[in-house]
Amino acid sequence: MRTPLNLGMDELRQRLLHMGGLAEQAVDRACQAYRERDLARCQMVLENEGLINAAERDIDELAFDILARQQPLAGDLRFILAVTKINSDLERVGDQSVNIAERVMDMVELPAVQLPVDIPRMAAAVSAMVRRALESFVEGRAELAQAVLEMDNVVDRMRDEAFILLVKTMNDRPEVTRQALDALLVARNLERVADHATNIAEDVIFWVRGADVRHNVGQDTDANAGEAVKE
Amino acid sequence: MRTPLNLGMDELRQRLLHMGGLAEQAVDRACQAYRERDLARCQMVLENEGLINAAERDIDELAFDILARQQPLAGDLRFILAVTKINSDLERVGDQSVNIAERVMDMVELPAVQLPVDIPRMAAAVSAMVRRALESFVEGRAELAQAVLEMDNVVDRMRDEAFILLVKTMNDRPEVTRQALDALLVARNLERVADHATNIAEDVIFWVRGADVRHNVGQDTDANAGEAVKE
Repeated sequence: MRTPLNLGMDELRQRLLHMGGLAEQAVDRACQAYRERDLARCQMVLENEGLINAAERDIDELAFDILARQQPLAGDLRFILAVTKINSDLERVGDQSVNIAERVMDMVELPAVQLPVDIPRMAAAVSAMVRRALESFVEGRAELAQAVLEMDNVVDRMRDEAFILLVKTMNDRPEVTRQALDALLVARNLERVADHATNIAEDVIFWVRGADVRHNVGQDTDANAGEAVKE
Repeated sequence: MRTPLNLGMDELRQRLLHMGGLAEQAVDRACQAYRERDLARCQMVLENEGLINAAERDIDELAFDILARQQPLAGDLRFILAVTKINSDLERVGDQSVNIAERVMDMVELPAVQLPVDIPRMAAAVSAMVRRALESFVEGRAELAQAVLEMDNVVDRMRDEAFILLVKTMNDRPEVTRQALDALLVARNLERVADHATNIAEDVIFWVRGADVRHNVGQDTDANAGEAVKE
């Protein structure tokens, strides 16, 4: 028999997954908009932000409600706290997608130029991180979450590389400074999405293992490799 | 007589204040380092990040412990949830300070140049936001928190202004592109600190009023003015 607590937690999990889907979609659309210089897609990202914000609020309220009424213990309590943290991170993924869409809207007004940065490749890596972080949550698998922490380093390297090449471009070709800056900021936004995926993965590990892997505490794991300053 | 729950919540409040002090100090030091091109201060910011990370972990553990053992209700439960969210934001303020310090370390290697951006003024506004957000928490005063939401718009405008002028500088004087970019990224980091102060203020209002002002729900307030996409 399902207890009210179990039912509440199932509902919470469902809603968080729905929220995750919205956040993933927002990133993917913003990056497609970048690739295709597509203002209509930018508009969709901006419009969907309201949905993501509303979903965040609902999840927080449900979590509060469950804590207040059911007073869950130990593993259940950890799960609910993890959900509220993952929830915040997903909302911020939505915010980053809006930022990317805004940069694309700026770019589209300027002449298209070739730039030494592979944003689609970076976007694919970042999307995979978000997707895998959510999978690790659905399946409650700490080792999947662990893989996300490792992917974060790859994205950080891509961002550093983009940074160096784009600054060089600004120096060499001042006439495309604005476009290069837009691309640089998109790369930064993607890096931040990756940081949120990392946070989610850490929260999953916290929930599954009952250990705090944040800030180099998970000695028996490679979590340290995933620890990075968020920008 | 103080109950275990009351004692736990007092302890939680004290630790969060200490954490807030560390985060504030980190921002102030990073900005002073910018003003004075001071590598020693950058180093202090980098070194103190470990303290902030440890403080975040301790607070989360204490909050979990109180929830598990004391099963607080209503206002107390809201307070503890607010603390865990404020805690994350303070840790991220520390991360932003590290980012600023790293930008300063890059700048110091380059020739000093005059740039059309008043970083110290922006830093003062942002520090005031963090300080006031923490005050609103200590005193449990929603109207102080409300003032923080309004200050966020001012900081956003400063960032936009800096953005426009610094891009123009990059175009007009390609030889100082790197310095202009460093300043632009410092301005962005400060804007993000302001966003975290805004998040904290929203959490204080959530706790004090029991209402969720996030995402334009607080109809009887000016909270809408403070709602902004976080970058």
